[in-house]
Amino acid sequence: MTHTSDPALASFDSWMAAELAAVEAKLDQLVVADTPAGLGEVMRYGVLDGGKRLRPLLALAAAAAVHGRREAALRAACAAELIHAYSLVHDDMPCMDNDVLRRGKATVHVEYGEARAMLAGDAMQALAFEVLAPEDEDLIPAALQARLCRLLAQAAGVQGMAGGQAIDLASVGQPLSETQLQDMHRRKTGALLQGAVLMGAACGNPSATAWAALGDYGAAIGLAFQVVDDILDVTQASATLGKTAGKDADQDKPTYVSALGLEGARARARDLHRRAIDALQGSGLGDAALRLTQLADRIVEREF
Amino acid sequence: MTHTSDPALASFDSWMAAELAAVEAKLDQLVVADTPAGLGEVMRYGVLDGGKRLRPLLALAAAAAVHGRREAALRAACAAELIHAYSLVHDDMPCMDNDVLRRGKATVHVEYGEARAMLAGDAMQALAFEVLAPEDEDLIPAALQARLCRLLAQAAGVQGMAGGQAIDLASVGQPLSETQLQDMHRRKTGALLQGAVLMGAACGNPSATAWAALGDYGAAIGLAFQVVDDILDVTQASATLGKTAGKDADQDKPTYVSALGLEGARARARDLHRRAIDALQGSGLGDAALRLTQLADRIVEREF
Repeated sequence: MTHTSDPALASFDSWMAAELAAVEAKLDQLVVADTPAGLGEVMRYGVLDGGKRLRPLLALAAAAAVHGRREAALRAACAAELIHAYSLVHDDMPCMDNDVLRRGKATVHVEYGEARAMLAGDAMQALAFEVLAPEDEDLIPAALQARLCRLLAQAAGVQGMAGGQAIDLASVGQPLSETQLQDMHRRKTGALLQGAVLMGAACGNPSATAWAALGDYGAAIGLAFQVVDDILDVTQASATLGKTAGKDADQDKPTYVSALGLEGARARARDLHRRAIDALQGSGLGDAALRLTQLADRIVEREF
Repeated sequence: MTHTSDPALASFDSWMAAELAAVEAKLDQLVVADTPAGLGEVMRYGVLDGGKRLRPLLALAAAAAVHGRREAALRAACAAELIHAYSLVHDDMPCMDNDVLRRGKATVHVEYGEARAMLAGDAMQALAFEVLAPEDEDLIPAALQARLCRLLAQAAGVQGMAGGQAIDLASVGQPLSETQLQDMHRRKTGALLQGAVLMGAACGNPSATAWAALGDYGAAIGLAFQVVDDILDVTQASATLGKTAGKDADQDKPTYVSALGLEGARARARDLHRRAIDALQGSGLGDAALRLTQLADRIVEREF
């Protein structure tokens, strides 16, 4: 923990390092190893020690912007990451993307077999909601528990992430219009990224203006992230990505690069970044939104 | 709807028929067809028009016992069924039990392919929580939303259903002690059956005594159900069961019949039934617990 006592003065890197450590410690606490038949070990393999933790960072940055409750925000951060991690475990399975490398390690089904991978993913989703609804309502007040469960369920479900994955699945080898591509990504990755922002925001008491602005920020940055991801899939090697590169094109999946070309995709990422920053500037949150601004910068700078 | 205006006088069959119709109508409303890429249709195939709806009936009978809120109880009933149905969809997949027949129909992965089956199951789990956390808190007060999400997440997760499935998976071809077998079933099927009872109970304001008694009832009846299921797997034909019969023995899975023998398993079911009835008699709920008593009878009578 190297950040100074004034978070506005701490550099982004030290804020991020401290928050990543806090998320990792909380996940380590919440995803217990001592479970029936070693399933907890499989869950830990799937969620600990890996990933950029973008969803947790978005939740914590949004909570910081509204001076939200700390324990609730940390749990929201972990819940969003658990949903993300379970979706990767299932997505990597042979019946979906059939991928063997993820976050620089063997995928869960390669390491533990398909049946345990599927079960671990299922249990991770349940745990995400359990984390948001602790018995001890001093940790998270009941009304906030309900709101967080609602936001997460909507982001993860058929109108959100799962629906987006279904579009993705149905669209292999299909030409998608840019509108269809955008709809797919708004759901597939955007819904949970935006959901993470809103869950963090729900941990405080934002004005209606700030709430709407944070929703706009989350939508823009959620899409920007995917555009950059599509660009990276084309331009970077597997070793840098920590997962198999070039597989979208190999699988003939429509991407922002295939739809807009590489330069067009880069321009789109810049445009979405601008919309995210504009939303924050109209939020009335002022300097408290600093970390969200910086996260938007980093998301787009991955590529440029 | 043929039951009389006095539920205590209505016969069990007409109560059950009316409640089954209410659950079916509510599921039909909650599991919408209009979703991205037809995923809603797959979810509907997996959850509508099939199954005994034991979990919904337990939730509604428990809610009746405590004069619980109706909309909350119906949603709790549907949420428990959605978790059960998603677990069947995943459990039937080739990497798990590899079953082709369920509820008298082709299993979901046979009908729609493995990828959509997995996604539909994932989306069903998310929907279960979404159903419990509606925006309109007149439907379910926020504090009850939180409590229902907690009960469901605990029942479905790594210490409950998913953990029990992991034990099941690890125990194929392994001799299990009776204690190990009981631990597996308490989790695999018992946790959600008990969870359904407790979710229904949470929709009212039971005394601490009644709450504990309903938990005991749920634990006993949850185990009784599994014992009877194991018996039926041996004694009945696939056509009657609506699923492939004899597959536990075919897969060399430990069951109550393999552990206790057929007569021993029958005696165990009777014993668990007695414990369930005793719990209700000590609950202080009196005649309000009638439907729970009758459900216990029916669960065990499936076999005798």
